[in-house]
Amino acid sequence: MPEEQSFHMTSEEFRRYGRAMVDWIADYYERIESFPVLSQAQPGQIRASLPAQPPRQGEDFETMLQDVAELILPGVTHWQSPNFFAFFPANASGPAILGELLSAGLGVQGMLWATSPACTELETHVLDWLVDMLDLPAKFKSDSAGGGVIQDTASSASLCALLAGRERATSYASNERGCDGRLVAYASTQTHSSVEKAAKIAGIGRQNLRAIEVDEHFAMKPGALARQIQTDRAAGMTPCFVCATVGTTSSNAIDPVAEIGHICRQEGLWLHVDAAMSGTAALCPEFRHIHAGLELADSYCFNPHKWMFTNFDCDCFYVADRAALIQTLSILPEYLRNKATESGAVIDYRDWHIQLGRRFRALKLWFVIRHYGVEGLRHHVRRHVELAQNFARWVQQADGFELAAPAPLNLVCFRHVGGDEINRQLLERLNASGNLYLTHTSLGGRYTLRLCVGQTHTQARHVEEAWKQIQEAAAELESGMPKHLDN
Amino acid sequence: MPEEQSFHMTSEEFRRYGRAMVDWIADYYERIESFPVLSQAQPGQIRASLPAQPPRQGEDFETMLQDVAELILPGVTHWQSPNFFAFFPANASGPAILGELLSAGLGVQGMLWATSPACTELETHVLDWLVDMLDLPAKFKSDSAGGGVIQDTASSASLCALLAGRERATSYASNERGCDGRLVAYASTQTHSSVEKAAKIAGIGRQNLRAIEVDEHFAMKPGALARQIQTDRAAGMTPCFVCATVGTTSSNAIDPVAEIGHICRQEGLWLHVDAAMSGTAALCPEFRHIHAGLELADSYCFNPHKWMFTNFDCDCFYVADRAALIQTLSILPEYLRNKATESGAVIDYRDWHIQLGRRFRALKLWFVIRHYGVEGLRHHVRRHVELAQNFARWVQQADGFELAAPAPLNLVCFRHVGGDEINRQLLERLNASGNLYLTHTSLGGRYTLRLCVGQTHTQARHVEEAWKQIQEAAAELESGMPKHLDN
Repeated sequence: MPEEQSFHMTSEEFRRYGRAMVDWIADYYERIESFPVLSQAQPGQIRASLPAQPPRQGEDFETMLQDVAELILPGVTHWQSPNFFAFFPANASGPAILGELLSAGLGVQGMLWATSPACTELETHVLDWLVDMLDLPAKFKSDSAGGGVIQDTASSASLCALLAGRERATSYASNERGCDGRLVAYASTQTHSSVEKAAKIAGIGRQNLRAIEVDEHFAMKPGALARQIQTDRAAGMTPCFVCATVGTTSSNAIDPVAEIGHICRQEGLWLHVDAAMSGTAALCPEFRHIHAGLELADSYCFNPHKWMFTNFDCDCFYVADRAALIQTLSILPEYLRNKATESGAVIDYRDWHIQLGRRFRALKLWFVIRHYGVEGLRHHVRRHVELAQNFARWVQQADGFELAAPAPLNLVCFRHVGGDEINRQLLERLNASGNLYLTHTSLGGRYTLRLCVGQTHTQARHVEEAWKQIQEAAAELESGMPKHLDN
Repeated sequence: MPEEQSFHMTSEEFRRYGRAMVDWIADYYERIESFPVLSQAQPGQIRASLPAQPPRQGEDFETMLQDVAELILPGVTHWQSPNFFAFFPANASGPAILGELLSAGLGVQGMLWATSPACTELETHVLDWLVDMLDLPAKFKSDSAGGGVIQDTASSASLCALLAGRERATSYASNERGCDGRLVAYASTQTHSSVEKAAKIAGIGRQNLRAIEVDEHFAMKPGALARQIQTDRAAGMTPCFVCATVGTTSSNAIDPVAEIGHICRQEGLWLHVDAAMSGTAALCPEFRHIHAGLELADSYCFNPHKWMFTNFDCDCFYVADRAALIQTLSILPEYLRNKATESGAVIDYRDWHIQLGRRFRALKLWFVIRHYGVEGLRHHVRRHVELAQNFARWVQQADGFELAAPAPLNLVCFRHVGGDEINRQLLERLNASGNLYLTHTSLGGRYTLRLCVGQTHTQARHVEEAWKQIQEAAAELESGMPKHLDN
């Protein structure tokens, strides 16, 4: 095959276009504050700008890069903008982006230890580092009976934990004969929706996921959990799993893990602790109280892709008993058999999650930890918490605004005292301005605004400006002024 | 906060290290043939080279890049080597790598249309393009009742299809009340292990996944499927799902989708067609016969991350009735509510898969299709098939070797006629040489070698050299020569 017909990007082209892409990204970050944070695109607008048919002949990379700027960027909601305060952050950083680039370049598929020993061993190693960095229970380290694995998301981690709990409660019979309609799982009314989705996926059923009531701070009531378990046992059901949350999505509430853990121990239920965003706070000794009771958990996860400068996707999932997880998810067809696996001396991570194939995601995590160092990571986490706490204080001190929930870390739930409608309009107006992006939730039945500080480049001036804009928009709404803010 | 304490990588540093990383990757591809394809690392070797504790202070990026070369590369199995003939390929290309870089740089999380309209709309658009490019049934396009979505892997696609089939068969009652132990699913003895894993995850149970027997070419016997369904119905079971395969992992067998499809229509079962690697062949009109009967399928997937130069992960999953999939996987907590979703005018892809969060994976697929053009992609697929067919012919013509199964496309299953033990030794010797990487399977109870041509840069010389080495190693084993080949 003559090389000139190869159609592949040559090494020289890759170097040239690669440099152009790196510069494009650096330029993007330099001007990121000039874009509306929430994309102002209308439904169908982006598609309408794209050709209906794929090209028969290859196109120039320069054209493609230009199209990214002209056709794609207007449809981007800028998650990496320092004015992004919505949902939870999905922050990124230079070392993480370059780690993802390296992972794509090596193009390794780490389903088995043998298909790239470094992909498995670096992952185990970095996840052990993180146990020390967050001062997690030693049982989550790979030199114990447990260990950690990178999952794509906390949704998948919750599903895997639920499955392991399901199997442990049925002596692995559900895997064999299917669920029997009698399994029950527990979460709070504030637990992330992914646990409801997991209960459906796992054949347990939405109705058999009990939504345990919460206290005035939106944290699970352990007494209510214990009573519900007794009720279910009395009805002949099979309780199997509890999900506790350290930092709920809605309001950052912290469930009483120790009390819940004692109940789970007594009842023999699998306890999963979901600390998707907030777990990162435990980098700092002064915030480690959020993990009180974690030694009673069977599994735990937190997402470096949320608040630890490691681009999406990267969820760290730990189990205390890796054998239970592996027995739940293992399959071994002939075409995956190999000497290393049969030696028992290696980890094959494909038995630790839903998928078979897996990327080399440990690289970006390794780069982030080494680039920042533990001190650098702590510095930024502390700073984000401080900025959020400042914001919470301003809300408390302002006429016309109130906190809607405790703000233990970097998420502030607040509202205008004028009722749901003004808060709804306030959110819409602020987001339409393009100057910042906030989202909402419902707490105690009331429409509530959320401001989460966790974007890599958010500094004091961004939070100050957000507060100024919130106050101004509220004042305009109060005085019945025209609906549209100028940008 | 003074900038000098920020710890973040500056824009200038990102440009400098980004260029260094791009060059590192280009250099890697230039010297990739100099590495042993299968890593020769011993269990624990990579970890032993890493410091036990994470750094307190940040480190230089140059040091990290040097560590990649010195500590990580010895533990890499080179999936991108042109001498990688193992498993199925997970091929990559320049435009795909740069697309992944851009995705990481933008750092978009596309769980909802609103969280980046371009992430959703480009994905829908490119997946519609691929329906045309592969000449798939029009019902899989987004302007019908169906549509496509990027999943991480075919494992996840199979799971989603199984769940939708489960729900359709039970009028969405399994989602509500859990599985009842009476659901049955069907695959062949040759179906990928992920379907067994999916049956366990979904609460159906391994024992309720029927392994339908195959014919002499390892393709599912439709008659046996029909009989098993009747048997199960007679026993009061609830058949819900069939997985047919276009190109099995073991031997590239192609199930008779049309006949299976008619049975599924008659019986009201969800038919999923898994064409993970082989689907890409349908880029070329002359190979489209592999999809005969696909118009009878409810869902379909193929993986551009296997054989379409798009780095892992990227599985394209299509359904004919998107409402069934969405009803199966949808959840809508208050904190995800937004105007666009409620308008009904947009797609929220989080309801199309297991996870909530999602990367902007359409970028790399868009780059690949535009860089190569349809003609460029066809050229390489044709070339890979031609190289594999050459190899199959050499095997057939050689004394001492035989084909173990038909080789319809780019996978050749073959064996030395001397029995299992010599084939086992042959594989071990070849892989230990580092010169190439093959894997094995079991066909008709016999140990079988597999050679799959699909790596981006594999050319005639690589396949010729592989055949030469296979013959030489076999000759040495036949003559009882020393066990270790020199590299």
